[in-house]
Amino acid sequence: MCNCLCGNCTGRPSIGSSILVHSCLATLLIAQHGSDDQKQNYIPLLAQLDIISTCGLTEPNYGSDASSAQTSATKVEGGWIINGQKRWMANCTFADIFVISARNTETNQINGFIVKKGAPGLMVTKIENKVALRIVQNGDVIFDNVFIPDEDKLPYLTSFQGFVEALSLARIMVAWVSIGVAMGVYDLCKRYVTERKQFGVPLAAFQLTQEKLVRMLGNIQAMFLTGWRLCKLHESGKMTTGHASLGKAWITLRARETVALGRELLGGNGILTDFLVAKAFCDMEPIYSYEGTYEINYLITGREITGITSFKPPTMKKFSRL
Amino acid sequence: MCNCLCGNCTGRPSIGSSILVHSCLATLLIAQHGSDDQKQNYIPLLAQLDIISTCGLTEPNYGSDASSAQTSATKVEGGWIINGQKRWMANCTFADIFVISARNTETNQINGFIVKKGAPGLMVTKIENKVALRIVQNGDVIFDNVFIPDEDKLPYLTSFQGFVEALSLARIMVAWVSIGVAMGVYDLCKRYVTERKQFGVPLAAFQLTQEKLVRMLGNIQAMFLTGWRLCKLHESGKMTTGHASLGKAWITLRARETVALGRELLGGNGILTDFLVAKAFCDMEPIYSYEGTYEINYLITGREITGITSFKPPTMKKFSRL
Amino acid sequence: MCNCLCGNCTGRPSIGSSILVHSCLATLLIAQHGSDDQKQNYIPLLAQLDIISTCGLTEPNYGSDASSAQTSATKVEGGWIINGQKRWMANCTFADIFVISARNTETNQINGFIVKKGAPGLMVTKIENKVALRIVQNGDVIFDNVFIPDEDKLPYLTSFQGFVEALSLARIMVAWVSIGVAMGVYDLCKRYVTERKQFGVPLAAFQLTQEKLVRMLGNIQAMFLTGWRLCKLHESGKMTTGHASLGKAWITLRARETVALGRELLGGNGILTDFLVAKAFCDMEPIYSYEGTYEINYLITGREITGITSFKPPTMKKFSRL
Amino acid sequence: MCNCLCGNCTGRPSIGSSILVHSCLATLLIAQHGSDDQKQNYIPLLAQLDIISTCGLTEPNYGSDASSAQTSATKVEGGWIINGQKRWMANCTFADIFVISARNTETNQINGFIVKKGAPGLMVTKIENKVALRIVQNGDVIFDNVFIPDEDKLPYLTSFQGFVEALSLARIMVAWVSIGVAMGVYDLCKRYVTERKQFGVPLAAFQLTQEKLVRMLGNIQAMFLTGWRLCKLHESGKMTTGHASLGKAWITLRARETVALGRELLGGNGILTDFLVAKAFCDMEPIYSYEGTYEINYLITGREITGITSFKPPTMKKFSRL
Repeated sequence: MCNCLCGNCTGRPSIGSSILVHSCLATLLIAQHGSDDQKQNYIPLLAQLDIISTCGLTEPNYGSDASSAQTSATKVEGGWIINGQKRWMANCTFADIFVISARNTETNQINGFIVKKGAPGLMVTKIENKVALRIVQNGDVIFDNVFIPDEDKLPYLTSFQGFVEALSLARIMVAWVSIGVAMGVYDLCKRYVTERKQFGVPLAAFQLTQEKLVRMLGNIQAMFLTGWRLCKLHESGKMTTGHASLGKAWITLRARETVALGRELLGGNGILTDFLVAKAFCDMEPIYSYEGTYEINYLITGREITGITSFKPPTMKKFSRL
Repeated sequence: MCNCLCGNCTGRPSIGSSILVHSCLATLLIAQHGSDDQKQNYIPLLAQLDIISTCGLTEPNYGSDASSAQTSATKVEGGWIINGQKRWMANCTFADIFVISARNTETNQINGFIVKKGAPGLMVTKIENKVALRIVQNGDVIFDNVFIPDEDKLPYLTSFQGFVEALSLARIMVAWVSIGVAMGVYDLCKRYVTERKQFGVPLAAFQLTQEKLVRMLGNIQAMFLTGWRLCKLHESGKMTTGHASLGKAWITLRARETVALGRELLGGNGILTDFLVAKAFCDMEPIYSYEGTYEINYLITGREITGITSFKPPTMKKFSRL
Repeated sequence: MCNCLCGNCTGRPSIGSSILVHSCLATLLIAQHGSDDQKQNYIPLLAQLDIISTCGLTEPNYGSDASSAQTSATKVEGGWIINGQKRWMANCTFADIFVISARNTETNQINGFIVKKGAPGLMVTKIENKVALRIVQNGDVIFDNVFIPDEDKLPYLTSFQGFVEALSLARIMVAWVSIGVAMGVYDLCKRYVTERKQFGVPLAAFQLTQEKLVRMLGNIQAMFLTGWRLCKLHESGKMTTGHASLGKAWITLRARETVALGRELLGGNGILTDFLVAKAFCDMEPIYSYEGTYEINYLITGREITGITSFKPPTMKKFSRL
Repeated sequence: MCNCLCGNCTGRPSIGSSILVHSCLATLLIAQHGSDDQKQNYIPLLAQLDIISTCGLTEPNYGSDASSAQTSATKVEGGWIINGQKRWMANCTFADIFVISARNTETNQINGFIVKKGAPGLMVTKIENKVALRIVQNGDVIFDNVFIPDEDKLPYLTSFQGFVEALSLARIMVAWVSIGVAMGVYDLCKRYVTERKQFGVPLAAFQLTQEKLVRMLGNIQAMFLTGWRLCKLHESGKMTTGHASLGKAWITLRARETVALGRELLGGNGILTDFLVAKAFCDMEPIYSYEGTYEINYLITGREITGITSFKPPTMKKFSRL
């Protein structure tokens, strides 16, 4: 495998997604919000991949609405008792530590905790039947009176806001995974249409082929530059939540369009994983939806530019059956 | 399973596609171009599914350009010798008879032949690693000096034009498979957004959800009416090749848009086959491309309405008024 | 001018829109909700175009939200006093009668009234600087203590619901105006690309041209069939508000796409009214937005299929500046 | 008027387009391909706008195919005789000098000439009935045995290739005009949806409004970055013809989508020039099509990336590897 995130290497968007959860979410949260001891204990091991981490905010009934998640943390002698359920946690079937959000039953705020593999009461079930990012081992995770010692609570992660910065960074990374996928698909398609002949000439000789290929290229250039600009904003400390959300949603929107064009260019061969584009086509779907769907990310940006929140629902009394 | 072609029943687009090849291509070609003996021998068995048929025009290097296919049929004493290769033949791993196109080496015209399972020189390899229509057993089929007795040549199928009428009928059926898939996805999505809650209310309460759901419904109504109109034209004997091609391409274009919207509405659950939409999303890709890609079908229609052929390549000097 | 609504005749979408307001709104409201005297007095004259009518629900601050309009009607001796302002009333600069909605200050319900040209306190200002439907004389209309005799109140139009049926019928008609426009544009484009040459051949010889032309045709077929189905539903008394809204919004969405494709096919000549397509391109914009924007119509349909109203806003206290 | 090219100032896209033709085409061609005398005589005056220039390659039958244009230049004693016709020349009704392409009847190559206003045989007719960029005075220009003295032939502009570099630069500028237009429309829309209320709240409070506004912003960021990258490539001498064509076509495609979204956000007010967005919506059409249509620019890029020419027509036998 080459050293990019592109779709050429069949496992890459899955591996990129795995690394992203490990590095940009779990490890980052410890680095940003952990105690000195926690940093010394975990970060060197995490950085070397000696231990693998996963991160969980999403719950079965709280995806877009992760800030309302209901997994609870109740203070007890010497630690905390966690109850609840997380969903989609990446690689939780083999991860060594789980960084999770849970609602402190005293403050009613979201706090952060480190849960270790094998903790009594921790049950992990792999989610089967995925059509995409199949290397990532997502799971449903149940916390049934799981005890966490005090030293495994992240001391400075005391509200949902603490997760937001990490989520923004993760969104940049997701955007880059999709840029890599789109670039890989473009390369594969360019080669395919140059080599594959119909009517006695390469597919690349047809106007309808060229238009698609160039549309893909135009998208990729813009995606790449937008991703680069996001990084520059982040580097300079100027990146807002809205920047990250817009970048992630806009770039993955174009990536989705781009891989669908690529899928078409391969005709029937576009449904075989042997030709790789089929895999990229499927993989783009979770990439488009995870770390915030297109809709949620656009509404986060919309809130930032208009000053008005529109993702909260109308009061239920305003809904009426006709 | 219910008695429609919709995506609710997980295997249906595959089964619809299988039946389509069996009935609308192989069986129909025998009915239209076979001898009385052939009709009497095969059609009752085919109609009862006592024997299963498949049909092959496409070759590894001749997909959109199927009229130039190179599999050859050479007259010998008492029959014909077939040499060449077909690709994508549906269910060829278990089909009893193969209706294929082959170029008569005397006339240089495409003729039709019936090849029986197990004929010496016939080699079938299942195509693996499909991401869609996985129940359909597509295969690569090699004909290595396969001998066909005279009575298995279709006497009235003596040029590519003979296949075109069957292809047009098959295109209507493909369009209907995609209508069924889209309707199934709509039903699933409508139920999902009514039951699934975020921010304390059903997803159906959000404007962005309703817009997608209604866009799907608008597409489906138009697809359904267009499909119905195609059938009426066919019934009355007025359906042209261009009608069928436009219908197939336009309807599957909208179906593809519709299932992609549905995939989005399910968020993360949209990538699990358990929720069925993921499967429909993948299945739409070959449906969109088989029996003529979007491009080829549009150019067939374009030729009909403008009188100018534009799919033949520049170097072939085939550019001409019809 | 021919007897269709197509874009070939440069004034037609404007004239179609004018007739629509006169017949399907103003005249229909009198026919449905008028007294016998009102029907006898007005309908024969309206039907013969001996007098011209206009209709007004929209106000400067109440467009999509027309059911909340604030023009008031206060009962006085022998009649009603109307105060308020309407906007966009078609042909109000020369219309003989104005059928308007006004809020009965006693019941707080929307009622219907007939206002005659020249009534004291009635002030009409033509809206200038329109880029589309320029033949339609839209105006701002101010009612400054306009007295309406009792006999000019529509006795059976006593709530906003009374306007809804007429609006639904009007929406079908708007959809048909857009179908006519799209058909006209298609005809013009087909002729143009057949006659106009580049690189020594008709534009119609290029794949990229054919794809656009066929996409236009596919849209038009589906628009036509959907419009026809709406009429059948209406005829049989089965058409719901949601049917009409979906039909109007979906058909005009496709019409908008279709005329934009046509505009492209004409290149530079596509911006000159001489070639007619430029005019159709501009005219489609108000057609897309009037009698309910795309969004409002989709949300009306969304309410019908999900049972949940989503176009009412969240309570303002839920909005907060960041 | 402010000092940007945005759509806020109603005349700006027209003025931007006018300056572009004057500076980036006519003046640049003299600077690149003129004699020292020509440079000294014209450039200071052109730079100060003391004289206004226009430029013409397009002919009534040669738009996308400008390299085949037929206006002829025949050598005679002391100069050249020009015969032919140009179309769309910007501001030719008042321009002082016309830089044109004409085919040298000896070499059969395209050469460049400066024609002065009022030259005998030069006839200018303003093109009327434009729906867009109405401040730009495009014209049809006839050259009926127009005599050009030797000193007004551009000595180093001796083939069509000489025009290509200027066209590439002009394409960057067109892209920037469209970026300015889109930014202006975004600003106008953001203000409009914040101020305009429906259902008791600002339009900005609705999800469907926010999604459109954010989609506009995402497009604009990507357009801006792509435009910036083009300039950097040009500055560093690395910009190819394909870069410029892709940049122009991709950016104006997004700009067209963006202004159409803006037009929708303004509802009925979106068809009045008073609210400016209507004007921008119309102006984007010629911007999308001039200096190379979307199709031609994509095929230029397609040729660069695949090595295969696909815009030459079949009958010309020009199909060839570059």
